[in-house]
Amino acid sequence: MKISGTFLDEITHDIPSANWGPEEWAADFDAMQKIGIDTVIVIRGGYKDRSTFNSEALKSFQPMLPVYTDLVQVFLDQAQRCGMKLFFGLYDSGLHWQKGDYEKEAEINKFFSEEVTQKYGQHPAFQGWYLSHEMSVYDSKLIRIYEELTGHLRSLKNLPVLMSPYVKGRKQFEDPITPQEHYKQWDTILGNLSSKVDIVAFQDGQVDFYELPEIMSINKELADKHGLQAWSNVETFERGMPINFLPINWQNLRYKMEVAKNAGVEKLITFEFSHFMSPNSIYRSAHNLYKRYREWLDLGSF
Amino acid sequence: MKISGTFLDEITHDIPSANWGPEEWAADFDAMQKIGIDTVIVIRGGYKDRSTFNSEALKSFQPMLPVYTDLVQVFLDQAQRCGMKLFFGLYDSGLHWQKGDYEKEAEINKFFSEEVTQKYGQHPAFQGWYLSHEMSVYDSKLIRIYEELTGHLRSLKNLPVLMSPYVKGRKQFEDPITPQEHYKQWDTILGNLSSKVDIVAFQDGQVDFYELPEIMSINKELADKHGLQAWSNVETFERGMPINFLPINWQNLRYKMEVAKNAGVEKLITFEFSHFMSPNSIYRSAHNLYKRYREWLDLGSF
Amino acid sequence: MKISGTFLDEITHDIPSANWGPEEWAADFDAMQKIGIDTVIVIRGGYKDRSTFNSEALKSFQPMLPVYTDLVQVFLDQAQRCGMKLFFGLYDSGLHWQKGDYEKEAEINKFFSEEVTQKYGQHPAFQGWYLSHEMSVYDSKLIRIYEELTGHLRSLKNLPVLMSPYVKGRKQFEDPITPQEHYKQWDTILGNLSSKVDIVAFQDGQVDFYELPEIMSINKELADKHGLQAWSNVETFERGMPINFLPINWQNLRYKMEVAKNAGVEKLITFEFSHFMSPNSIYRSAHNLYKRYREWLDLGSF
Repeated sequence: MKISGTFLDEITHDIPSANWGPEEWAADFDAMQKIGIDTVIVIRGGYKDRSTFNSEALKSFQPMLPVYTDLVQVFLDQAQRCGMKLFFGLYDSGLHWQKGDYEKEAEINKFFSEEVTQKYGQHPAFQGWYLSHEMSVYDSKLIRIYEELTGHLRSLKNLPVLMSPYVKGRKQFEDPITPQEHYKQWDTILGNLSSKVDIVAFQDGQVDFYELPEIMSINKELADKHGLQAWSNVETFERGMPINFLPINWQNLRYKMEVAKNAGVEKLITFEFSHFMSPNSIYRSAHNLYKRYREWLDLGSF
Repeated sequence: MKISGTFLDEITHDIPSANWGPEEWAADFDAMQKIGIDTVIVIRGGYKDRSTFNSEALKSFQPMLPVYTDLVQVFLDQAQRCGMKLFFGLYDSGLHWQKGDYEKEAEINKFFSEEVTQKYGQHPAFQGWYLSHEMSVYDSKLIRIYEELTGHLRSLKNLPVLMSPYVKGRKQFEDPITPQEHYKQWDTILGNLSSKVDIVAFQDGQVDFYELPEIMSINKELADKHGLQAWSNVETFERGMPINFLPINWQNLRYKMEVAKNAGVEKLITFEFSHFMSPNSIYRSAHNLYKRYREWLDLGSF
Repeated sequence: MKISGTFLDEITHDIPSANWGPEEWAADFDAMQKIGIDTVIVIRGGYKDRSTFNSEALKSFQPMLPVYTDLVQVFLDQAQRCGMKLFFGLYDSGLHWQKGDYEKEAEINKFFSEEVTQKYGQHPAFQGWYLSHEMSVYDSKLIRIYEELTGHLRSLKNLPVLMSPYVKGRKQFEDPITPQEHYKQWDTILGNLSSKVDIVAFQDGQVDFYELPEIMSINKELADKHGLQAWSNVETFERGMPINFLPINWQNLRYKMEVAKNAGVEKLITFEFSHFMSPNSIYRSAHNLYKRYREWLDLGSF
């Protein structure tokens, strides 16, 4: 069971830009293809005042920074060239929903997704939607936004809808959730989102390694119960270190992949290839991670 | 309008050393020259117990670490070789002025600048002074130090005097200044420093992108009003990220250069080339930034 | 006087993994050998749920992550190939001793060191023990653990025992220790550990540069008084910077080596070569540090 999907982290939010142009992105899609990646997920189409293309929809709500390269076009073309499916992530205002104004966040995203569909909807690589707002516990307002948006997205272009929640785990939170409470929360959430969201890919990095098997089994059980596909977001960056964020230790990555396989998930995706496990990464330990991963895949050296 | 000046960040203070020797510095001056840099500014001649050369003046005030390479000589020789002007930045005790003892800070710098003039004053590349103590709002004592030092510096060697203040902006401060208050503060400050300081190059990184046009217009207006040249310090590192500090996203750099051009500033300098946009940088994203910048300059690939 | 020993920082704890496999480790041992390193010290055989080999002893106390490469075997074989001595560092639970349960920490380490002796004790490169629990001031319980463990280790395999304490210096602590108090504390500690520990290699990075000569003289004087060998742990990473941890400025490293030489220590080791001064490091400034260091050693360029 190998990693066959990756997020594309533009707009970068807390990860530094590699300053790649179309040429460097093309080289990285080649590197992805070599290890069997068939799915790419744009983490968010826009964030605050930044966007992946010059969006008139977003500009109608707030001033936006100019965009000099249409990254959505670059990513779609590369995905097509490499035979990959692209999931498009929505806009995150970093503002309205944090202040409780979910209606505004939904409204902006309706306009935004309409523009995206109009501009890129006919592209053959456009194969899915990604809900970029992340959840960890039940939140009635965020659930409502998910419900409203998924209906709207399907009406625009009826494609699989992916979400990638995080676990309120002890590596990130001082009051971590118990497995029992995690089960309860997500039983309710997925009950609400059943038939609206198609795929749930929990992040695997917030939980301590020894707790991961139990949490992943819960995630898989609940996805099955509510009729969603269960993928795992096998994070390729290390958590809990002084430098946020650098490539993960290969040993830890391999362990997490094995736990995911044992839990029976259907697909492994990662946040994310280009910074943390690419031979083109700005981080040299990522080059070595790619080597270790390819040795493990038995693809030979290169 | 391109970046034609850069700080040289030795003594490094909060940026890691690249451990370059004279050979690596020479290669980096070549890279600077290729994109049209004609001005280099030594950020500070000394900081706390470290200095750019073995300064007897500084040693007479406090114990100093030994210096094994005379960086001032290296920088002056490289600047001359590449046809660049060097501005020399003063000593920052990191101690006296923070404790309110501005007299001491001025006294040390008078001795220090005398020694610097004696040792390096005849070098043809020595073409300016840089006031390394940074200001963001009116500070009567720091103004007095500026007044005393600029008079002294001109008496030693009558060269242009540069300052590079920061804006108390929301990217760095929890109680950011309003544009109105920024205008008021700097109207007073530049009124005081008129005919003492020749050039003011505000840092552009503390302000949110959407506020930058307004703040830069104020900066230019005030410089004109008080008879100073207005340059812009277009920072090439990213602010507001978990890792402090890494190369900026090319999109953000280009945006800030365009804002500066629209505000009518006379020259763009940056903090700083060697770590954040050099093809020789210890950071790989800087190599890509140099590529993006050269593509934009239409200098062709390399 | 050159650096002739280095820690091997696996299990990495707060330093990111380079993701090296046996091939990359072999190349790094070559680089070590070129500058005269004859001693390697495994910083810890295990830490929390991670270990350098699949330890049955540790698994009998708590769940451990699987280990896919036997690093102890890799390190011992490389050390032998390069004619180096290896000191083996003990297990740090990161739990029991912090909670005051020193008995538990000692008990685990007794089992662990027995297993280590059985598995690797006959390897010709296995030439010393390293006490991985670090001390800075007198701690009666930690002293007892040292006493118990050193006796046990010697009964298993009678080899030199090394410790590398830290100084409660102002670069890391808000209430730094005075030199007088440091003398008093370590006079007592080394009095207790005399004839139990053979070598003491104080870390040199917590102390401000100007205080280092005094502190190092104290360290040497006390080691002599109590019959221990005095080495110095010349840290090759920079302290007190926003990014923890990156390679040190060559100037600072050279200064610290000179202070150690003046204090009369018998050997210089470092934490650590592979991340911070290796030509194979994931950090490019380390490559330059290696160059500077070799120039200084007069080994010529390469």
